[in-house]
Amino acid sequence: MNNKIITCWTVLCLSLIMTSSSLSAQKKVKQKPLIIEEQGSFAVGGTMIENPGTFDPYNITPAGQTFRGDHAYVFYQVPAESRKYPLVMWHGIGQFSKTWETTPDGRDGFQNIFLRRKFPVYLLDQPRRGNAGRSTDVASVKPIPDEQQWFGVFRIGIWPDYYEGVQFARDPETLNQYFRSMTPNLGTIDLNVTTDAASALFNKIGPAILVTHSHSGGMGWITAIKNQNVKAIVSYEPGSGFLFPEGEVPSPIASSAGALEATGIPLQDFLKLTKIPIIIYYGDNIPDQPSKNSGADGWRARLEMARLWRDAVNKKGGDATVVHLPEAGLKGNTHFPFLDLNNIQVADLMSSWLKEKGLDK
Amino acid sequence: MNNKIITCWTVLCLSLIMTSSSLSAQKKVKQKPLIIEEQGSFAVGGTMIENPGTFDPYNITPAGQTFRGDHAYVFYQVPAESRKYPLVMWHGIGQFSKTWETTPDGRDGFQNIFLRRKFPVYLLDQPRRGNAGRSTDVASVKPIPDEQQWFGVFRIGIWPDYYEGVQFARDPETLNQYFRSMTPNLGTIDLNVTTDAASALFNKIGPAILVTHSHSGGMGWITAIKNQNVKAIVSYEPGSGFLFPEGEVPSPIASSAGALEATGIPLQDFLKLTKIPIIIYYGDNIPDQPSKNSGADGWRARLEMARLWRDAVNKKGGDATVVHLPEAGLKGNTHFPFLDLNNIQVADLMSSWLKEKGLDK
Repeated sequence: MNNKIITCWTVLCLSLIMTSSSLSAQKKVKQKPLIIEEQGSFAVGGTMIENPGTFDPYNITPAGQTFRGDHAYVFYQVPAESRKYPLVMWHGIGQFSKTWETTPDGRDGFQNIFLRRKFPVYLLDQPRRGNAGRSTDVASVKPIPDEQQWFGVFRIGIWPDYYEGVQFARDPETLNQYFRSMTPNLGTIDLNVTTDAASALFNKIGPAILVTHSHSGGMGWITAIKNQNVKAIVSYEPGSGFLFPEGEVPSPIASSAGALEATGIPLQDFLKLTKIPIIIYYGDNIPDQPSKNSGADGWRARLEMARLWRDAVNKKGGDATVVHLPEAGLKGNTHFPFLDLNNIQVADLMSSWLKEKGLDK
Repeated sequence: MNNKIITCWTVLCLSLIMTSSSLSAQKKVKQKPLIIEEQGSFAVGGTMIENPGTFDPYNITPAGQTFRGDHAYVFYQVPAESRKYPLVMWHGIGQFSKTWETTPDGRDGFQNIFLRRKFPVYLLDQPRRGNAGRSTDVASVKPIPDEQQWFGVFRIGIWPDYYEGVQFARDPETLNQYFRSMTPNLGTIDLNVTTDAASALFNKIGPAILVTHSHSGGMGWITAIKNQNVKAIVSYEPGSGFLFPEGEVPSPIASSAGALEATGIPLQDFLKLTKIPIIIYYGDNIPDQPSKNSGADGWRARLEMARLWRDAVNKKGGDATVVHLPEAGLKGNTHFPFLDLNNIQVADLMSSWLKEKGLDK
């Protein structure tokens, strides 16, 4: 009994010391204030359902009533003396704008990092997700415990073990914040609905750079085909939806997470993807060879498909690059490189590429 | 046919002229940049479901998996040289943080207005809503056309007519943005779940001022009873959940929107509400007498109940004020005074009250 009390006190003391030291660490690296010229939010895109009949305010029935849904929700900030092209940041599956905000361990995410680097930043919640929850589809949502599976798929480790050298803080509160950064989809993820809303955003704000993650990777290519205001794409770990010219679609790539299939589209659509610079990043702990660790093995297939896709784009005169971060000297990155412990270095790579392509004027 | 084309062109021209003139109006009132010392987001509160068994990463089943949900999601900003007490802004029914952000017609909402006035601002999405959508409850969500009813309940007018002098822009895009600012609840609105999460936020950030709207009004009183870090409450149009000492609960107040009932709580809990300054605001177009316009008549009952509640609090030594905005000279306000066309004046009233109570140090 006494031992237990002592242990608890030791843990408490350690945690107080850690809190205190991380506070002083934070103070040491205290950032300059953000100078924000303008910030706000809006809905964009979407559709409307309209009941037949005439609404009677003194006898309320469904008749004549409307329902607007399937829009995206956007929060944006424009820093002082901002660069020309805004960054539009689009979350991945099960996620929302939080992906780009404060990291689970409390540091700046890409929202703040790129505001500090003078880019206007637009964070998008795709239709039927997060703050864009008003869906024209019917949705049934249940709490299904799944976090240990995500721990593997997001390549933090093989539960309950963290990968050696993984760029992810190991305290319980980080994991708590990380899992609470998910939110369910309200109805089907309809690629037309999501990309129409994203395209409507590019119509509204004009030429901008699209930053995608995981599931929005594939939706990003579709958006760029729909809208020429997409001036470039930075894609972190695109997970599906690789588009090839019809007749040139590669065979599915097998993995212990299932087969990864590519999609054929008309050549004239594909060619639109050869007109803009595109860079794709994948993190660490992706096996070289087929592995029975399905959480990681799916990414082996995706990295391989991304390279085939890069080659197909470039063969048609495009400008696509795939960076496997360990080959660029960045080790230990998870499926979310932009919130990993080394996310400043991850951002530096992106900044260098934007500069190289003349996109940071 | 030609007539139609001419009409369309006239509308287009008018809308171009309006866009152009509102753009120049915006330029004229261009604000100084916001100087933000710190901004970010986090989840707070919530619970965890844990499946029995042990998770096997090589044979994934539900066994041993966890699910975190029922937290609140918070986005916060701290301006330079900020005042002592942050403002915690909590949305109403069917709403999320957007309530406090850009108004439907594109002006600063209370988030920006009070950042400019040097208050740290915390915007809360309550558990099971918006970005805090990971719910431990089962949810079934359907698109049910209801906007004409909300138009009445939110006192913009009696559909399709706007109230004369209503502080709400009459262009279609404003209405479009307004209705797209709603998002469904994922499961039951459980007052314990929501107020536990709000209370956890006050534990995390320390003493602060709670700003509530409509449905969060009642939840705000419960939060203040739970947590002494709630230093004051500013409540816009609280809609339900008026708490009285057991044995002193007034009779329900009838209205064409249904009877409004009050709730009895132990005296010792009620007395906690007498220890902090509280101000309640209601807008315009609330009938004096019972009305068959149920959208507005419910607010007659709520305003009457709020006055009874104020008297009960003050009789026990409290400091509660009810302001009916037309009596304070502000006409035409809807159920959302903080985003109405005169929201600067609405904010001025709040600022004056905070100053009077010494809460703006």
